[in-house]
Amino acid sequence: MSLRPQKKLFSAFVCQTRRYSAPGDGSIPAAKQKYVSTSGTYPKGFLAGSAFVGVKASNTKFDDLALIVSEKPCAAAAVFTKNKFQAAPVTVTREMLQNRKGDGIRAVIVNSGCANAVTGLGGIEDARAMGTTTDAALPDPATTDDGNGTRSIVMSTGVIGQRLPISKILARIPTAVSNLGATHDHWHAFARAICTTDTFPKLLSRTFTLPSYPGTTFSLAGTTKGAGMIHPNMATLLSVICTDAPITPAALHPLLAAAVDRSFNSISIDGDTSTNDTCALLANGAAVPAAAWSSPVANNPHSDDYQAFLRELTALTTDLAHLIVRDGEGATKFVAIRVLGAPEYAHAHRLARTIATSALVKTALYGKDANWGRILCAVGYADGVPERVVDPTRVSVSFVPAASTQARETPVDGELRLLVDGEPQQVDEEVAARMLEEEDLEILIRLNGEVTGEECVFWTCDFSHEYVTINGDYRT
Amino acid sequence: MSLRPQKKLFSAFVCQTRRYSAPGDGSIPAAKQKYVSTSGTYPKGFLAGSAFVGVKASNTKFDDLALIVSEKPCAAAAVFTKNKFQAAPVTVTREMLQNRKGDGIRAVIVNSGCANAVTGLGGIEDARAMGTTTDAALPDPATTDDGNGTRSIVMSTGVIGQRLPISKILARIPTAVSNLGATHDHWHAFARAICTTDTFPKLLSRTFTLPSYPGTTFSLAGTTKGAGMIHPNMATLLSVICTDAPITPAALHPLLAAAVDRSFNSISIDGDTSTNDTCALLANGAAVPAAAWSSPVANNPHSDDYQAFLRELTALTTDLAHLIVRDGEGATKFVAIRVLGAPEYAHAHRLARTIATSALVKTALYGKDANWGRILCAVGYADGVPERVVDPTRVSVSFVPAASTQARETPVDGELRLLVDGEPQQVDEEVAARMLEEEDLEILIRLNGEVTGEECVFWTCDFSHEYVTINGDYRT
Repeated sequence: MSLRPQKKLFSAFVCQTRRYSAPGDGSIPAAKQKYVSTSGTYPKGFLAGSAFVGVKASNTKFDDLALIVSEKPCAAAAVFTKNKFQAAPVTVTREMLQNRKGDGIRAVIVNSGCANAVTGLGGIEDARAMGTTTDAALPDPATTDDGNGTRSIVMSTGVIGQRLPISKILARIPTAVSNLGATHDHWHAFARAICTTDTFPKLLSRTFTLPSYPGTTFSLAGTTKGAGMIHPNMATLLSVICTDAPITPAALHPLLAAAVDRSFNSISIDGDTSTNDTCALLANGAAVPAAAWSSPVANNPHSDDYQAFLRELTALTTDLAHLIVRDGEGATKFVAIRVLGAPEYAHAHRLARTIATSALVKTALYGKDANWGRILCAVGYADGVPERVVDPTRVSVSFVPAASTQARETPVDGELRLLVDGEPQQVDEEVAARMLEEEDLEILIRLNGEVTGEECVFWTCDFSHEYVTINGDYRT
Repeated sequence: MSLRPQKKLFSAFVCQTRRYSAPGDGSIPAAKQKYVSTSGTYPKGFLAGSAFVGVKASNTKFDDLALIVSEKPCAAAAVFTKNKFQAAPVTVTREMLQNRKGDGIRAVIVNSGCANAVTGLGGIEDARAMGTTTDAALPDPATTDDGNGTRSIVMSTGVIGQRLPISKILARIPTAVSNLGATHDHWHAFARAICTTDTFPKLLSRTFTLPSYPGTTFSLAGTTKGAGMIHPNMATLLSVICTDAPITPAALHPLLAAAVDRSFNSISIDGDTSTNDTCALLANGAAVPAAAWSSPVANNPHSDDYQAFLRELTALTTDLAHLIVRDGEGATKFVAIRVLGAPEYAHAHRLARTIATSALVKTALYGKDANWGRILCAVGYADGVPERVVDPTRVSVSFVPAASTQARETPVDGELRLLVDGEPQQVDEEVAARMLEEEDLEILIRLNGEVTGEECVFWTCDFSHEYVTINGDYRT
């Protein structure tokens, strides 16, 4: 059952440089350049920028402070890590959004290089200071005290257990304000400054319309960063998404939660869930004059506007999530895992997630080994899936050349059947080898012969020598 | 917070040879030789042996069929994988033990090189044939049909999804019978023949007494194999344990289940749970003439004999489980994770297991990085642990030079405190670096300042480049 001529894994192993905190000038790996946006359409009324602090002493030149400002107070919502050890900026931002009921927000201030996590009361004070200093640095009366406190979302990413060099950070916030602008380059600078071990900045934008606003083009732009500690229940992962569509504060959180569930919470790099994960969505309505807001998108999942915006938002967060997997630490593969025919979405999600986090599946993918036994094994031990969901005599496993939109068909174009109704198939190892040479692959699991039932798609990467190198030597 | 001078992980990276299926003659790595028993005291009335089949075509010389026989019919119990895809030998052995109510068993027949998993009805027939052929090959009337079918436990380990070369295996069973004997070398041959990617055979024995049998010395011997797919809910992991103490069939299963819970189910190599895990315990009472059995150890957890045997069995299974971790694929470290102060054992176990399976913790250990943030992070995201169990302001994390018996004391000898009641400590990086240079380390988590509450110890290894190499290229 040997797939191919003897490989020499080591000779193929090249140590790709990842600097900890902020990528180098022009050091984006050639293979990743196609994922870096060179232009975009950005939401009106938002400004982006960055500044250099040197949060990490070894960083002497790359911007590591990032700022987005809404020219007018806007609605905002965020979802956070479910880790019991929540970093100080998570605690502070959550409180701020509760105090303000998601309204009247002006800015997002982010530092990379230090996570401000497990830093006690001092860390909380530092995170608060970042918010109030940002408020004060804005060129208009953002600081007017309406009794609801600061108006800035605060995020941090980097090493756990160290205090921020807070005075250096606060001193550079006015610089970040003075660097603000609305061009692609400004957004790109923001996206770069939030990176840690990412090898490329992640920035996407799109335009859309809403049924209630014929003739108006809205914009939606999002940035995110990985690349380790990525796992459902919010990945580490910071993400900031802005739109100039008018959306009520009450609608923003359910919209964001629904979009994140099918995107950021459906990817895994290494199964670790960070202390700092935060995804924030800001909506300022600036694409239409406030006087013309016929009806801001409200918290009504049955309205056409709500559904139209949810589709756009989910598409953007899914694309952003894919970029994180593409840049997974040490990743050489982008693998979609599609589970069909589950009684409930949660079952399909559990199964897909278990396959996606199996070290044996991920090392086999790295080794280009069509080892479907490991896939099946992961299906068999997935936690929290009732016996009735997995009938060993009805499970089928296939490879599909790349994520397909027709996976409900049987067979899918180019499908390579490895196991059908529990029976191993005669596999054309030549075909399998060719499929495994490609960067993209879909693993398709049909739980039963029917095409009915719930479907989940989950995205993951492989597990390589480079992952071990990066994470065995992170702090040095 | 840099721990040490710049390391060159790659220059230190030596690709240690692991042959898939059965280790090479004298190819045991120098560092592992101290774990290989050179003598032992084996239970009376049991014989062990092996034979060469060549289950895997690439194996042309190493024994891959292993047999243990009890001279008289004996009591037996087994615990199995909880994976929904159970291999054919698991199904067949479970049925056999149920049919016989754990009594009248004669043999354990094991092949390495092919797992006989996901092989349909044909695989079931193959597993049954291994049992009946073993019965028939024994030199005495083991085959006498008492209406309860075969008397042999069947196990297989190796690649999933391929049929056994069953006629070759059946043809060599008489050879294994003719090679049987009671010496250390015979038991050693058994232990070697069940290995797959193990780098050394795992065989331990011990003697003990029981209160009801003053003056009688009993023996307990066990073998096991790893080394991948090791995770709670039975690790893959085959293990056979024999004793010449008299124990009733009804008592064997609860005794085995209790011992496995604190040993084999408290280790993890890679978080994957195999389709074939089986641990069997056989008791023939041969150390005392049947006429002198004053009272075989019965299913009464309150009896002194029961508790005495449980202590011995748990000690043996724990030592065997440690050998599996020592031989974890690519392992360079042996790490005990001790969680103190949980309201329930299950909570402590969940927390310890989550730390033990975190890819980030395991790569940091490989990199000798005192990255306690990752340990804490894993404590924070452990699934199924109620909020009240983990109070971030009361959790402490320490390193202890090696597994200590005094971990309930504060501080433990040589303890290096990293986090105390949620507050990061000033860490002497020189001391941390020295501790991380050692093969053995204990990570000690105190959930609260008190020393009350439940305690769990879980054992794991690190995650190295070699793990990726071994598992990226397993089938070739």
